[in-house]
Amino acid sequence: MSTTQTGVNSPLFADVIRGRRSVRHYDKSVRLSHEQITELLKEATLAPSSSNIQPWRFLVIEKEELKEKLQPIAFNQSQVTEAAAVIVVLGDTEGYKRADQIYGEAAERGYMTEETAKSFAERTVSMYGSLPKEVLHKIIHTDGGIVSQQLMLVARAHGYDTVPMGGYDAAQLKAAFNISDRYIPIMLIALGKAAKPGHPTTRLPIEDITFFNEMPADK
Amino acid sequence: MSTTQTGVNSPLFADVIRGRRSVRHYDKSVRLSHEQITELLKEATLAPSSSNIQPWRFLVIEKEELKEKLQPIAFNQSQVTEAAAVIVVLGDTEGYKRADQIYGEAAERGYMTEETAKSFAERTVSMYGSLPKEVLHKIIHTDGGIVSQQLMLVARAHGYDTVPMGGYDAAQLKAAFNISDRYIPIMLIALGKAAKPGHPTTRLPIEDITFFNEMPADK
Repeated sequence: MSTTQTGVNSPLFADVIRGRRSVRHYDKSVRLSHEQITELLKEATLAPSSSNIQPWRFLVIEKEELKEKLQPIAFNQSQVTEAAAVIVVLGDTEGYKRADQIYGEAAERGYMTEETAKSFAERTVSMYGSLPKEVLHKIIHTDGGIVSQQLMLVARAHGYDTVPMGGYDAAQLKAAFNISDRYIPIMLIALGKAAKPGHPTTRLPIEDITFFNEMPADK
Repeated sequence: MSTTQTGVNSPLFADVIRGRRSVRHYDKSVRLSHEQITELLKEATLAPSSSNIQPWRFLVIEKEELKEKLQPIAFNQSQVTEAAAVIVVLGDTEGYKRADQIYGEAAERGYMTEETAKSFAERTVSMYGSLPKEVLHKIIHTDGGIVSQQLMLVARAHGYDTVPMGGYDAAQLKAAFNISDRYIPIMLIALGKAAKPGHPTTRLPIEDITFFNEMPADK
């Protein structure tokens, strides 16, 4: 830990990206306060999004009985009840309707003129409102991935661990937690203090997946 | 900059996430070598993905004439030609077919038994191969968002800047750069040295978008 120019304790960036692993065993005695979780989410949402719409929403499941309710929906993965909390990352399909609030705040802070803010907001609502549902959903999934990755890194930087989970029944999840069709579940992220370190994993050779200036002939 | 336990120079994590902004004006005199870009991508791909399939692929456009070709496709945004490179983040819809290679490597390194690797690979190919196209595409967009965010942070940590771009004509992009239907364009990321700092932007109040244990009644 070192101290930033703004006086915040922070580990080195390289240690965070190299230290982050998917952790599946958590210390059940460690819980996080609402303030701690809110702080992690606040830092996660410094990430960018399409037109700065920030369509991400977070349902934080931390009550013991609710984690138990979630566990079978998440195919009985043990981290669901062991972790301090499971964060359901949601995409709000009506998120773009907050464009007024978002750009209005930017104008208030002097980041843009009121005129620009008004015109941005109008254009955004009209553009996103007329997108085919499929295209809107793709944007929301991409933005959901963006904020999820920043959240996992932020958690690590604060000494916690995570595991992203795609294995769950989305329909059951929505029914069990009263999530309306307005919201799309992107992923579950278990959050807590590791009881056992995550397994190392491999990556494809970078030269197999990077193409300079042209696609390979055989693809 | 401080030095990690492994001797790598690295800034503080908090400075990276707070310092990253979408930069739209680049120093045209600064170019990155293939080695530098490959190193950034290598660190980006330390990010997690669904079943560790790593469906991300990177088309790095850095030749001047190709950036000029891309610019009108990206709605004439000036950063396309000003930046050192534009990285087209692609999702490979056949990425899961590399499960053998990925888990096989994990077995070789002793991270899992050969039996487990073989069974994981078989299950992965069968499971992803039978997913409805729409579901597969959602996973690929989410994983694309995950790696894109890590790439933007990694670039900042190395003293470079980025801007994610969703504004481009995907069909024209695919035609101009011989990208087959096997690949889905997720976003363009301009990469280079900032000539002007990015504008500050606002974020929604965290309590407006965070729900503890239950969804709000009106939503």
